Amino acid sequence: MPDFAQISKPTLLLDERIARANIARMAAKARTSQVDFRPHFKTHQSAEIGEWFRDQGVRAITVSSLDMAAYFADHGWDDITLAFPANLRQMGEMSRLAERIRLGLLVESAETARALAQGLNVPVDLWIKVDTGNGRTGIAWQDIGSAQSIVQVAESSHRLRMRGLLTHAGQSYAAASPIRAAEIFTQSTSRLDQLRQSLSQHTGLPLRISTGDTPGCSAVTNFAPADEIRPGNFVFFDAEQYLMGTCDWQDIAVALICPVVAVHPERNEVVVYGGAIHLSKDDYTHQGQRMYGLVSLPAPGADPASPAWMAPLPGAWVDRLSQEHGVLHVPPESLVHLKVGELVCILPVHSCLTAQCMRRYHSRSGNWIEMMPW
Amino acid sequence: MPDFAQISKPTLLLDERIARANIARMAAKARTSQVDFRPHFKTHQSAEIGEWFRDQGVRAITVSSLDMAAYFADHGWDDITLAFPANLRQMGEMSRLAERIRLGLLVESAETARALAQGLNVPVDLWIKVDTGNGRTGIAWQDIGSAQSIVQVAESSHRLRMRGLLTHAGQSYAAASPIRAAEIFTQSTSRLDQLRQSLSQHTGLPLRISTGDTPGCSAVTNFAPADEIRPGNFVFFDAEQYLMGTCDWQDIAVALICPVVAVHPERNEVVVYGGAIHLSKDDYTHQGQRMYGLVSLPAPGADPASPAWMAPLPGAWVDRLSQEHGVLHVPPESLVHLKVGELVCILPVHSCLTAQCMRRYHSRSGNWIEMMPW
Repeated sequence: MPDFAQISKPTLLLDERIARANIARMAAKARTSQVDFRPHFKTHQSAEIGEWFRDQGVRAITVSSLDMAAYFADHGWDDITLAFPANLRQMGEMSRLAERIRLGLLVESAETARALAQGLNVPVDLWIKVDTGNGRTGIAWQDIGSAQSIVQVAESSHRLRMRGLLTHAGQSYAAASPIRAAEIFTQSTSRLDQLRQSLSQHTGLPLRISTGDTPGCSAVTNFAPADEIRPGNFVFFDAEQYLMGTCDWQDIAVALICPVVAVHPERNEVVVYGGAIHLSKDDYTHQGQRMYGLVSLPAPGADPASPAWMAPLPGAWVDRLSQEHGVLHVPPESLVHLKVGELVCILPVHSCLTAQCMRRYHSRSGNWIEMMPW
Repeated sequence: MPDFAQISKPTLLLDERIARANIARMAAKARTSQVDFRPHFKTHQSAEIGEWFRDQGVRAITVSSLDMAAYFADHGWDDITLAFPANLRQMGEMSRLAERIRLGLLVESAETARALAQGLNVPVDLWIKVDTGNGRTGIAWQDIGSAQSIVQVAESSHRLRMRGLLTHAGQSYAAASPIRAAEIFTQSTSRLDQLRQSLSQHTGLPLRISTGDTPGCSAVTNFAPADEIRPGNFVFFDAEQYLMGTCDWQDIAVALICPVVAVHPERNEVVVYGGAIHLSKDDYTHQGQRMYGLVSLPAPGADPASPAWMAPLPGAWVDRLSQEHGVLHVPPESLVHLKVGELVCILPVHSCLTAQCMRRYHSRSGNWIEMMPW
């Protein structure tokens, strides 16, 4: 049981039991689907939490920066995909890292692939980043020509081991239901598969397909035709996933614990110490209401089999954030429970960015779990 | 001249000459208006940058957390207002800090004032936080009764030295022009003054009035009837202030330097290494367009009297952010200048939150300027 009495300022509480259950569930689903599970570690960014994945048999991971790859390499991970378009200004760092681990890189143009072939000193795994509808980056899934030209560069280089096609179907974050998230997963994976089939007709190369976003991976029952999944957020989940229906509130593993510093009953608002620098300003619009988190209260008692916080207060949300202030909308029936000097538990909209802001976790047993240095 | 060739990942470049000029201009305006200048240090959070204020005669400062107050106390600042509603869970820390510096605290209820009177071991300065239209926190400016009850608590305690009335007219950030920002400043300061006059009829107590927000303080020519101003953001300014018209682009002292990792001419977009964890997700809507920053290019040459970056590219903005990715909208005539592997300079929407994300600054001369530890 976390010693709430000891908490005096914004603190990111992590429920290890819930996070471990989230990991075990996704790992089991990957085994059932016979796909590789290469979870994204950008959500937690912690060597200690990485061990919870190792306990479930995970041996290969995904990261979002070279610094993060180097940190996890220092902690015994030797098969890492850097799921971000290769940054040519970090050529030396990529080579040095590829000397000590199996490093996977992403490209989305033949030019970048050529620059890697020329600039790297050691071989890397190469993935073609494909846009299957997200509209952020990657070659369009119908663009067989661009994919072929990248494959040709890789085949003519002994530094680039062509591994396959990779997508992030981030459009699933706009899904309003698990069914819609599953549809997006199926559509995007099928698009990757079409591109793979077209390419194999031309090149004969065996290509793997890799996908992964928490809404899709949580919603579907089977990952086929993917060969690999890379979700990250599911380790903690958050208010967004709960409101979307891809998790229950009891699956959310982190909450920002905040002191109440002012109560404004005349406008159904509570001001907490806990703002944009703690939660991040990522927002989510649910049923027309833009918000930065849901509001809960510390759970009475010390049942380790239940979350340390209670169900979200009905009709309450984090309405506005400034640098250190959070303004909560709380309906009158709940407002009576919130007093200056007491604590609230905020379920963040986006746990990845809240963890990034906070840089460490407070466990239920009261110790600190550190993240990589920033 | 910053050595742009050495920059390989998102880097917050700070132009000291511009920041010093911003400080000197605001300090001079405060002297002309004969008001105290107690700048807010939450924007820069750096002992080294604090010295640039000391060079302009600043001796008293504002901060937004007790940790920040302790950090600046450690660096020789001995008169600090903590401009955040007093957090009763940090009573011991407040007492310990007030033992070594002159500490100002904010309250907005007699209950909190009473808790401070009972809980503190040493005297502090007390300010009544007043809501003059921002709607975040503070007693309403018409609420003479609440103000009187706080004054009464302070007068009966030898721990609470009643200093005056304090507001943050943050509604000025929604002003679309300097004239509107000036109107908001004048309205909110006049509301504080009305409350002061009503209170002095009842209590006879001499009360000071303190205000401060960068849009208002930048827009007005005279700060009367304020006795003290507390702006913070003006040290760096940012794209929001530029688009609002309260600064020129040449007054913006920080830019996030980002490598280009992909170009998508078919949709007039560029993807950079630089995302929500670097810029923050604070947004600003200008002429109907929601954005996270403006886009510029490194300035050729090394003229120390000019900014290290050029004027914002017309019609370009940071359109979307994910954890590490930034997606820029760039019109075709500028798109031709942006190649994978090159750098862009992003003028952030909100420099306070970008600085908070980045935790240190790269100076034009190439050294690092550190912020307080997080």
